Formats: sequence, C-alpha cells, structure tokens
Amino acid sequence: MSSSYASSCSSSPSFADALLSPRAIALVGASGDVRKNTARPLRFMRKHGYTGAIYPINATRADILGERAYPSLAGLPGPVDHVFVMIPGSEVAALLPACAQAGARVVTVYSDGFGETGPDGQARQAALVAQARGLGLRLLGPNSIGLADLHTGGILSVNAVFEADTLLPGDISMVSQSGSMMGSLLSRAAARGFGFAKSVSVGNESDISVGEVVDALVDDPRSKVILLFLETLRDAPTLGRALSRARALGKPVIAYKLGRSEQGDALAQSHTGAMAGNDAAVDAFLTAHGVMRVQHLETLFEIAPLAARHARPPRAAAGVAAAATRVAVITTTGGGAATVVDNLGLHGLAAVPPPPDFVRTIAEAGLNIRETPVIDLTLAATSAQYKMLLEHLLRADWCDAVLSVVGSSAQFHPGLAVKPLLEAERPTNKPLVVFLAPEAPESLALLREGGIAAFRTPEACADALSVFFADAGQPPTAGDSVACPEGLPRHGMLSEHQAGTLFRSLGVPVAAGQLLSPDALQHAVPYPLVAKVCSPDLAHKTELGAVRVGIADARALSEAVHQMLEAVHRQAPDARIDGILVQPMESRLIELILGYRHDPLVGPTVLLGAGGIAAELAPDFALRLAPVDVDEARRMVLEVRQTRLIRGFRGLPEGDCDALAHAVAAFSRLACLADARVEEAEINPLFVRADGVVAVDGLARLA
Amino acid sequence: MSSSYASSCSSSPSFADALLSPRAIALVGASGDVRKNTARPLRFMRKHGYTGAIYPINATRADILGERAYPSLAGLPGPVDHVFVMIPGSEVAALLPACAQAGARVVTVYSDGFGETGPDGQARQAALVAQARGLGLRLLGPNSIGLADLHTGGILSVNAVFEADTLLPGDISMVSQSGSMMGSLLSRAAARGFGFAKSVSVGNESDISVGEVVDALVDDPRSKVILLFLETLRDAPTLGRALSRARALGKPVIAYKLGRSEQGDALAQSHTGAMAGNDAAVDAFLTAHGVMRVQHLETLFEIAPLAARHARPPRAAAGVAAAATRVAVITTTGGGAATVVDNLGLHGLAAVPPPPDFVRTIAEAGLNIRETPVIDLTLAATSAQYKMLLEHLLRADWCDAVLSVVGSSAQFHPGLAVKPLLEAERPTNKPLVVFLAPEAPESLALLREGGIAAFRTPEACADALSVFFADAGQPPTAGDSVACPEGLPRHGMLSEHQAGTLFRSLGVPVAAGQLLSPDALQHAVPYPLVAKVCSPDLAHKTELGAVRVGIADARALSEAVHQMLEAVHRQAPDARIDGILVQPMESRLIELILGYRHDPLVGPTVLLGAGGIAAELAPDFALRLAPVDVDEARRMVLEVRQTRLIRGFRGLPEGDCDALAHAVAAFSRLACLADARVEEAEINPLFVRADGVVAVDGLARLA
Repeated sequence: MSSSYASSCSSSPSFADALLSPRAIALVGASGDVRKNTARPLRFMRKHGYTGAIYPINATRADILGERAYPSLAGLPGPVDHVFVMIPGSEVAALLPACAQAGARVVTVYSDGFGETGPDGQARQAALVAQARGLGLRLLGPNSIGLADLHTGGILSVNAVFEADTLLPGDISMVSQSGSMMGSLLSRAAARGFGFAKSVSVGNESDISVGEVVDALVDDPRSKVILLFLETLRDAPTLGRALSRARALGKPVIAYKLGRSEQGDALAQSHTGAMAGNDAAVDAFLTAHGVMRVQHLETLFEIAPLAARHARPPRAAAGVAAAATRVAVITTTGGGAATVVDNLGLHGLAAVPPPPDFVRTIAEAGLNIRETPVIDLTLAATSAQYKMLLEHLLRADWCDAVLSVVGSSAQFHPGLAVKPLLEAERPTNKPLVVFLAPEAPESLALLREGGIAAFRTPEACADALSVFFADAGQPPTAGDSVACPEGLPRHGMLSEHQAGTLFRSLGVPVAAGQLLSPDALQHAVPYPLVAKVCSPDLAHKTELGAVRVGIADARALSEAVHQMLEAVHRQAPDARIDGILVQPMESRLIELILGYRHDPLVGPTVLLGAGGIAAELAPDFALRLAPVDVDEARRMVLEVRQTRLIRGFRGLPEGDCDALAHAVAAFSRLACLADARVEEAEINPLFVRADGVVAVDGLARLA
Repeated sequence: MSSSYASSCSSSPSFADALLSPRAIALVGASGDVRKNTARPLRFMRKHGYTGAIYPINATRADILGERAYPSLAGLPGPVDHVFVMIPGSEVAALLPACAQAGARVVTVYSDGFGETGPDGQARQAALVAQARGLGLRLLGPNSIGLADLHTGGILSVNAVFEADTLLPGDISMVSQSGSMMGSLLSRAAARGFGFAKSVSVGNESDISVGEVVDALVDDPRSKVILLFLETLRDAPTLGRALSRARALGKPVIAYKLGRSEQGDALAQSHTGAMAGNDAAVDAFLTAHGVMRVQHLETLFEIAPLAARHARPPRAAAGVAAAATRVAVITTTGGGAATVVDNLGLHGLAAVPPPPDFVRTIAEAGLNIRETPVIDLTLAATSAQYKMLLEHLLRADWCDAVLSVVGSSAQFHPGLAVKPLLEAERPTNKPLVVFLAPEAPESLALLREGGIAAFRTPEACADALSVFFADAGQPPTAGDSVACPEGLPRHGMLSEHQAGTLFRSLGVPVAAGQLLSPDALQHAVPYPLVAKVCSPDLAHKTELGAVRVGIADARALSEAVHQMLEAVHRQAPDARIDGILVQPMESRLIELILGYRHDPLVGPTVLLGAGGIAAELAPDFALRLAPVDVDEARRMVLEVRQTRLIRGFRGLPEGDCDALAHAVAAFSRLACLADARVEEAEINPLFVRADGVVAVDGLARLA
C-alpha cells in the first residue's frame, strides 16, 4: 500500500513539509522541449538552486534537459515526498497508485479537465479524491499551477513568474485560488522588493483547501505574513480553524477577495466552478476571523510590513461608536498629503492637527509647526528636525498612526529623503506608513528594506490604514445547544405561529398572538387588533390579502376573517391553513428586519437591517456569523444607519437598543438548535420601541 | 509705460505665447549656487536645450553658472516676454515697473508670502495684482512653482522633476493648483512613457487662473489632452468658458480634484488659502462642462490615450434610465480579468457575454469561445487568432468597449503579448483598454507608444472606463430673464407666503394658501386644513410650534392660531408676523426637497433630493448648475433613488415624474431673476402625487 514506505521510514516528512518543503520530487510528464510549460519546473528548480532530489518522469525519453529521466514512478532511486503531475487529466487517476508506492504524501495536479469543466468533471474529481484518500495521498489541485518554496528553490510550478533570473526570498507567503494571479502578484511584489517564503496555487481545491495550506503556513517560521487571493470559500470550517490559530499566534492574514460587486461575485464563482457565492457572508467570515480584507489589489502586499510589525488595535467597547482613527500627517508636499487625506476621509479616518502643547514641545526643540491637520514642512526642516518630529509623533498620545508623505526628494535623493524615516526610533505600538508622491522606486525599495510600509498610490495607502484600523472582529460565540420547543415540526416551513413559538423559546419578544379556528373567533386580545391567516404555505401574506390591521371589534374581525380566507382560497387554493392569528396592534419608533441564514459557504449567519421599503433603495444592514453574544449584537445595532433615528437623532425619542441587542443575540441562537437545522428565518418587521422590542411577523424554514 | 515696447513691436507675442512659449526670459533672483532652488531654471533650460534668450538677473554677481548675469531688468540687450521672479515676496511689488519696461507681458511669481498666509497676505496680493494690471502685466502666482514647455525646454520652474536627464515631449498638458503634485504627476507619467507638452502650476491664481491657462491650451496645437489637478475653483466663469471652447473643439479635459471627502475638501481649501469649497457643486460644474473627473490619482494620465482617441458616447435620452455600459472582456488570465470586472461592477458597468451568432462567427474563423462574460483564451489562441477576435469585438454592436487583460506573457514576452493589440485595426468609435496583470513596464510602454490606454491597476482601469462612459453633462440652459413678481421685497429673507408667490410666478405648483390676519380668520380653504404662522424671521416653524395640521373647523383654527402665536411670541419675540397662512391638507406619494443655492464657487445650483428624516442618514440627491431645462430635470429625477418608489417599484402607485421635472426646471429659473439675486431657496417638502406635484412649504433668501 501507499504508505508502506512512508510509514516505515523514520524520516517521513510531515504533511506540511511534504506539501511546502519536499526533499524529493517527481515531475510526471516533464518535457524535454524547453518551449513547453511542462519543461518549466525542472528548469526553474535548477535555475534557482533546489538541492533536493528531482526525478523527471517521461515515458519516451531517457534524457530531459540534460538530466536523466525515468520511464515511470516505479523503480526510482529513492522515495519522493511530492509528485507534480503534468499529464492529461484523463491519465491522472491511473497514476495515483504509483505515486503512493513511490512514497509520496502529496500529489499536486496541474492537469485540468476536472471540476472546472462541469458536472462530469466534478464526478471525475470526486472519484480522484476518493481514490487518493484510499491510497493515503493528499491532492493539491487539480488545475493548480503549482507551488513554490522561494527559500529552497523548490518550484513545483509552471508559473512563468519563476522565469525571473533571481528569486527574492522573504517572509511573506501567499495562497491563491487563481494561478495566474499568484504569478502576477509575485511579479508586482518582487519588482518592489517584497520577498516571499512560499506561494501556493490551490487550483480546484478538491482535497487540500486554502484552509489547510494556511494551517501549514501558520507553523512555518519563515512565513511572517500570509496573503490570500480568494475568489470564493470552499471549506470555511477548515479555514476558520487555521485563521483562529493564526490569530492566536499573532500571524497576520491579509486577503484580497473578488466579489465586491454582484458581477464580480458571479464571475469568480463561474471561473473556478465554485458554488454560488455570497460576498457579504464571506466578508463577515473573514472579519470574524481577524482577516484584513483589502480593497485594492496592490494593498495586498503593500500592507505586509504594517501587518508584520504592528498588532491591530483592540476592538472598541461594545455599544459605543468607535472613535475615528486619528492620523498625524507630516509632509513636504501639501498636495501629495491631501491626496491621501482625502481618501482617508472617504474611509472615515481623520487627519488630526497637533495639540498646542505638542506644537510647543516641537518649537522648544527648534522646529515651528502649526496646528493644522497636515504638518507641512515644505521649506523648513532639516533631516534631523524631521526625525525629531517623527519620533515625537510616534510617541504622542493624540494620534493612532503617523503618515509621512514625501515629495520630489524621494525621486531625486532617495537616500536623503527616507533617511529620517529609517533612522527614527519606531515603537511597535504606533504604525508609521509612507506615501511617496512622485515616481520613486528607489525610495520605495529602501523603505521596504527598512520594514516600513510604503505605498505607491494614495488610494492603496488609505486602504491599508483603513483596513488595519477596522474592527478586528471575533469568531462566533460558542453557544450552548438549545432544544426545539416541543410540538414544532423538525423539517420544512413553519407557520408564522410556529415560528413565533420558536423565536420566543430563544428569548425573542414576539407579539402575543392567539391562534384561533376560523369557526371559533373568541379570544383575549384587546381591540383594535391585527388578524392574519396562519399557514406554512403563505410567505407573502400581505400581498395575498391575508393580513388585516386595525380591526375594531368582533364583527369586523368576523368579516375580515371571511374575506381573508376567501382571498387565500382563490389565490392559493392548496395552502394549508393552521388558523387565524390575532395579535394586539403594536406601536413602534422604527421597524427593523432580523434575518438568519445557514449560508452555503460560511454556515449560520445573522443579519440586522433597516425595515420598510426605503431600505431596499440603499442597503443598510449588519451581518455576522451566528451565534453572536449581546456585545457583538450591540456592535451590529450601531452599524445599521437606521438605528441612528432611535439613538438621540435630532430630538427624536430614543429606542431600547439594549432590548434590541438582546433580541438579536437571542435570534442568532437559531444556530444552536440541537434537533433541527434552520435554513433561513426572518422577523419582519421587528418593532423597536422606547421600552423593548417586539417581533410582529416572522417565518422560518427548517432543513 | 509698460506696454511701450510691446505695443510698438510688430512681433509682440500673444498673451498665450508670452505665457506658455516665451522667446525671451528674465530670471530675477537667479542664484549661482547650484544647490539652490533659484539656480534651477537656468540650469534646466540649458540642460533641455531652450534656444530663446535667457537673462539671469542678480544684483551682486555678474556671472551665474558660467553665464553673464545682469544687475537689473533695466538695460537688457533685448526685450523679454516673460519674467520669472524668485526674490523675497516683499520685494516683488517694487520689481513690477521694471518688468513692464523690459517688455514682459507675463510675470510668474515663485515668491511666497501672499494670499496663502492669511488676510494681510491677501491684501498684499490684491495690491500686487492691481499694480500689475495698471502696468499692463499679467501675473502667474504668486506661490507658483512655475511652468514649462517640454518641447522647447522653456522651463520657468524650480520644480525638481526637471532634473531628469531628458524630458519626454508629448501631447498632454497639465494645469495644477499644487506645484509639488505637478512634479509628482509628471514624474509618474514620464516613467510610463507619457510625454507632455506644457505644464503649468498656477500657485495662488491671483490673476491668471486655471481657466485662462486652459483657454490658452485649447488653442495650443501641441496639447491634445488637458489634465487638471484641482484643489478648488477660484474663477469658475473663466474656466467654464474655456471648457466650453475645449468641448466645442473636441479637446478632452480630465480632472483629479481633491475634496471627495469633507476632510479632503476642507484641507484643500486651507492648503492654498482658498475660500470654503463645496465639492458637490464643483462636481456639478465639471460634469456640466464635460470634464472627466477621475477618482484615482494615476487615472489622470493613464486615461489620456482613451480620451485623446475616442469621442465620449452621446448622452442617454432624458427621462430614460441609461443602459449599463457593456464591456466585452478578453483575457489570458481569468483571475486578472476578474479583478477589473469586479471593479467595473462597483461602477455599474457590465461585462457582457458574446451572443450566440458572434460565437458562431468566431468559430467559423477557427477559434472556439464560450458565451461567458469573460472570454478566456488561456490555452487556446494564437496571436493571429487573438487579433482576429479583437477586431471582431471592436466592430461588434453588442458591446460599447473592449477590455483586454493580459497575463504573464506581458511580463516575459512584451513584444508578443501586446502584438495583436497593436496590430489590430482599431476603429475610433469603440474604445479598447488594457490591464496588465503582472508587473510589465515594457508592455505598458509599448501600448502607450501605440496609443492604447493601458492601466497598471485594476482599480484605475475601471475608474477610467467608468468616467469615460459617465453622463457627459451639458452646460446650464441659457434661460430668459424673469421679472420678480411685483410687491415682493428685493432683498433679505422672504416669508413663506412671499416665497410661494415667487415660486408660483416661475411655474412651480404651490399649495393654494390664503394669508389671513390673526384677527380675521375668514377664508375659502376647505377643512381639514393646515395653518402656519407666516414670518420672514421663522426658518424652523415646526420646531417652534408654528405649524398645525389637520385643523377640522373654524373653532379649532381659532384655537390653533392663538396657541401658535403665543408660542412664537414666547420663543421668538422679535419675529415679524405677516399673518396666518392657511392651506388645504395635501396628499402625496413621496416627499422630496427642492433646493437652490448661489454657490460661492460655481454660482447658481439646483438640487433635488429625498425628503424626510431617512434621507439624512444616506445622501440621496441630484445637483446641477442652474437653470436646467426639463430634459435635464428628468435626468435629475432619475438620479434620486427615492423616486424609484414612484416609478413602478413593487406595484406601488406611480407618481407624476413629468410634473416633477417641470417643477424642478421652473424652480431652477430662480437663477434668471432679473431684478433680485436669490442666495438660497428651498421647497421642503415638495409633495409628488399621481397627478402633479405641490410645494407645501418653502423659503427664500435674497442677497
């Protein structure tokens, strides 16, 4: 069996080593024609000095690029850790037993023709994974452009980026769902002096997913920062666990994820044959796990020195609007600084002027500055004064970060221009970032070497600061499991009355309703009241005429019930009718929506959003992984713009935000149901009052 | 007098030539110390081959950098067109007469210490301008870093960017309100192969403003595209005229303007001592004059080839929502293409799949593509096939633009990668833009040389397409002047009743009100009605308890009037009371706000916005220069999100958008009042009904 060699050999590598740092590699399908992609891995490894064993496998040639090639994986001089497969997709399955027999733990499949091609390919892919598992093999790909260790030159990849004459080893590692973008990002970063440790293209993620690679990188001492280029999430639980470990160990993870626009989201899915995505839920997932999601492509690597050196600030206290991040700005180009400050403003970060006592201190040290939001030193300062001011700023308590914007000197006198920045004593608790206004590649490289985050565009600079100082999130609460109330169905659609019972059991205040038989309308609800037809089959009661409000007395109730039932029978003759639900008329300050969804990518999520039609014109919601605790729910309340109306807005009456947060947290515990799985649920509207909240209508669909 | 020489000399240069292409230059304050800024202009001009006459003026040295220097402007060997002044600000005024006598038409003042320093400096600056005018001189600056003609090497500037060993002359010109950013942008553009014709830093714009420079550039045959780096507007009428000429002559103008965020807006003002700005109004001004305002700094020059080669599309018909711009996307890197497409989606542009007959045509030509929003040729196409497909796309009627995203070949085989792009026949009516996914400076340069717009970041690429295809705007309508209704004051605050009379006279439907004496409440308005205290001194009637709605009968009216007057007397004892305004209760589908403002920067503007409190949570308005015609008003109606509720949203009743547009156009004619100047006016709320609109409350303040 496959593991016979591996398990008997005391030096058998760990999964992580076999994946990321194999000592012996077989290249199946290696070509001797230098023009072909399949000739690249051998060429790359020789060029970049890989010292492990390489076994090119070619059925028809005994010699590849001047090296001995082998006809098959059988009978190699020694065991291999990792096989890189470049043969047609249809031949891969037949190869796997030999991979196992050769001692491999990991097989990276460059071959395509699997999951990305449609249902047939997906079936082939599933079969391939099952076969590999049976053989004790792990698969990277298929359709993976491969992976590389830039410190050892172990390049199991056909990516053209490794054509470069020299690789720049460094402490950043990248995991990418796009093979070509992995190369593009490496080339962009390398041109700026950013060295990499490992880079991994996961291809179709049939077996080894992004999460497992991240997990391996968390333990890799050479990887100080982990970058992700994501199109979707295929295995959120595994990634979530890896991210939790990364956070616990203080290893920053940065992500660029496609899908901010609906079009981009749809494209990213179709491009790799992934299932339908939902960017908002994935965003909640990334935030919850402390991932810094950048908006600009190049921020992905430009932010690395910032993330590597500085810990993100602690979260704002729950229920208190976070104060704007205060940035001290020092520059020799007022216009250049303004380009960043303008973008910071769009992100909600504030350029703050130095307070009078600070200005005084600096004056006593020999430099006159003014109390303006940008400290402009155009004509004034020497390099020593600049350094002095910088060091004072980096120790000041009135700012959270320091931004230096350098003008033309960065272009013509790189050494001089960045000298005070490099020489200043920089405490790790106060980030320093730099934007260079002119084209100044040398200055950028010097700053990079010095471990200072320097940005090529004002947009990326502001993006990085904004992302770094954004709420660092927290994973969903580990809620105790909750039993479903007795008597409720465990599957399918619940009626409004049943859903109300479920929500109430979790602690959500629900309008006190009574379910009546249409033939016996006696009840204890005071008039005026609301009456609705209660049915698991009517999702849009209002549109069907199955809701009546403001019913004044028994006669009106009887009439309304008659008319509603007639309307329902006419329009939805097959709807099962549980009865007539009567509820008191409830008052409110504002209406919100509470939503719950078992997201196909990230699992349970809870949403608090603005209610009413206007909210449909401009999205206004907060979304989290569920369940959330009351503190997290308080943060959600603050995120929804609409709640400003009940938080002391223009003398309007204040609403009960505390009760609201408790209701959100209670509702989110739908994720904790022990004996049923809620697919989706909604309270719409949730009325917020001065004293408490109440769910007025709702539904739930179980798996 | 100043003009004695100039006016008597037949070869006296035009203002534009003296400004942009002087034949003889005096450098006042030129230093012989090469380390000083003030030594730069002479050095720069010698380095870059300026062939006109240069006269360094230095009171103490007869020799500057090996050339003859002159002690003063008096007694130069020949006349000068342009004087560049680098002496202390306090000495500039004394210099002007000599400038005039030396024949100069333009004096560029690098010296600072004027308007940018505060009120005293502003006074000095005003005096300097008055003096110059009297001498027949025009001033650029003060506080201008100077200007340059990159074709002649005529560099009247201390900007370090001209230290470059060679200048890249080209067909782009730039006008900048920031001197340092002019240099930064030139350096960034030059590094990418973008050559410039003229670059002008306007400094404080005490005399020659951005508009006059643009006007001169419109007539400069070497300037094919004009770029603006703006912090504010100081002379909108002049710029407006120049922009109208540029548009008429088909010369594109691109602007990057600071101030998208409030913080950036405030900073841009303070930085150059400009008056308070209002970015939304300036944005309306730029749009009205066909300026393409980019959001990303580098888009400013990266978009130039697109703007130079292609005319912007015609505006969408008024009253019809513009269809999303359709972009055909062709790529060798699916992930790379997705980064642009995702950003396009954020801007509302659509990546569209090729229709079946197009796919068939291409198949017949030997290339198989699929009906997907991104045409991915990763493994398939030869260079000839790529070119063939591109040419078909550029002639196809199902897309408005073509985006090519090039992968790793752009980095390693620049010639090959961009060959099909450069060789394809490119009609001018269909823009082609390119994003290069990897670091690929050579490919960028080749595309630039070939006149193809190529972008370094996906964000700038999407920004450029979005800006190019945005509504091209139109200048405000030239409305006939309108007389103020008789009997109205011509100054100060109008009462609600007076404002209503004014609005009605322009054609705005205003609620039929009757102004009653508090002592004689007989009227013809049917009950229930609304009653308000009418006063020019009460801007916030509701808050003061001076409005009552739903008054049922005469007795209730009498009581309400009593209570309202008491409330007003108590809280605003000095308010002049014109009477009691009674109006019928009006119904509505939605409430909007109509605003008018004589903006201090751009003049008359009209705003249509969402009404009610919710609108304050998320801005929702359309703003234009006033007056607008009905067609433009229809476009405004479509821009306000709130109006979706009355345009066939989810079965809600439809409102009278036609009447709404007419009301907007009528209200905007406040700009045409012949005998009074309206500073600001507001109708809030404006009720929109199924049949017509009605102004329910309003105010106006005259100059």
